[in-house]
Amino acid sequence: MNTGAQNSEDTAAPLLRSDAERNRARVMSAARTVFRRDGLGASMSSVAREAGVGIATLFRRFPKKEDLVAAVFADRMDAYANAVDVALDDPDPWHGLAGFIETVCGMQAADYGFADVLTMTFPTANALEERRNQAYEAVVQLIGRAKAAGRLREDFTPEDLVLVHMANAGVVNATGDAAPEAWKRVVALMLQSFEAPARGPLPASPEPRALYKAMLRASQARSASAGPGKNG
Amino acid sequence: MNTGAQNSEDTAAPLLRSDAERNRARVMSAARTVFRRDGLGASMSSVAREAGVGIATLFRRFPKKEDLVAAVFADRMDAYANAVDVALDDPDPWHGLAGFIETVCGMQAADYGFADVLTMTFPTANALEERRNQAYEAVVQLIGRAKAAGRLREDFTPEDLVLVHMANAGVVNATGDAAPEAWKRVVALMLQSFEAPARGPLPASPEPRALYKAMLRASQARSASAGPGKNG
Repeated sequence: MNTGAQNSEDTAAPLLRSDAERNRARVMSAARTVFRRDGLGASMSSVAREAGVGIATLFRRFPKKEDLVAAVFADRMDAYANAVDVALDDPDPWHGLAGFIETVCGMQAADYGFADVLTMTFPTANALEERRNQAYEAVVQLIGRAKAAGRLREDFTPEDLVLVHMANAGVVNATGDAAPEAWKRVVALMLQSFEAPARGPLPASPEPRALYKAMLRASQARSASAGPGKNG
Repeated sequence: MNTGAQNSEDTAAPLLRSDAERNRARVMSAARTVFRRDGLGASMSSVAREAGVGIATLFRRFPKKEDLVAAVFADRMDAYANAVDVALDDPDPWHGLAGFIETVCGMQAADYGFADVLTMTFPTANALEERRNQAYEAVVQLIGRAKAAGRLREDFTPEDLVLVHMANAGVVNATGDAAPEAWKRVVALMLQSFEAPARGPLPASPEPRALYKAMLRASQARSASAGPGKNG
């Protein structure tokens, strides 16, 4: 049957499909609300409560919190990948990179949950990780172009982008609605220090492996509130 | 009686004093451990558990979590005030300010709890607030000197210091032990963009009042896990 079902995981009988899809849409919408409000630290039970479904139903559909996260942020990852494409198309490589950083930091500011997605990693959420890895390759190109044009400091690394997102998440989380534009100033300051020529040397960039470990650790700490999902 | 008791709040009979003091020291040490490990979001009950005292005992001595926070971080506030003095004594105003920012960000990195203290505000913890306000006046002087020497960008505001601490807390919390030096690179980047001449204009600095509201909001959110202290 070629019904264009979004997800091959669905084992419900065909007659139940539209019910299942309605259910899924309700859960996704609730999860989007809860993650936007509370970040990825939100528990599976608060998502179930918001959706008005039982916790068992939620876990049947999304056995791990990472699966739910991946499904909810699929469109955000699209927007992210799109921002990379826009940047690569920019004839001015520095303008492209700076605009990309501003855009993505703005996405973080608009959505606490997405701020977490960018600075954590969910090894079991394969779809999300794969998308992010593809985007990463494109970002590496973006950085190379800006350096080749002499507009980005030579010692800039892809890890610096992760650090910008971590710093931005700190500002966004701390200021919230009270000072909703504050992050723009911090990002502008960071961009000014990225621009070539560098004003001075910097302490070493973290090793990619160490940063990956940090992102993993952060997501595990957050998943601690996910409940039974950890053990399937 | 001139016993040099640290705290006039102590209403225990003189004979009980040394017991009470031992108890207090035990609670303080436990709170230090718990706040360092979990930040100020840690609950009063986890402090009581770590100290091996009943929750009622803990709340009798520290009716509000803010009181406990103020007591625990009194020495940290001393170190902070001391760092300001060192900076004001530096014959090179820029070197003094940059060193101060590095020192305080290092204190944040060494102690998650202190990272929270710098970016939250506890209106009922008068002692802590008073110390912080004194330090603030000195920091304003520090900024004025660095600008007068032409080494700090003219549009720098005291609020930018708070933003640095928020950004630094974001990096410190996200990287933890996995990349314990990463914050140094972010702080160095921020310092390079603070140095005069500015590379370009910046989005407006948040209003002091808005930032104060943000700090208040953050501490209230964290205090939500403090239990009965809110109404105590």
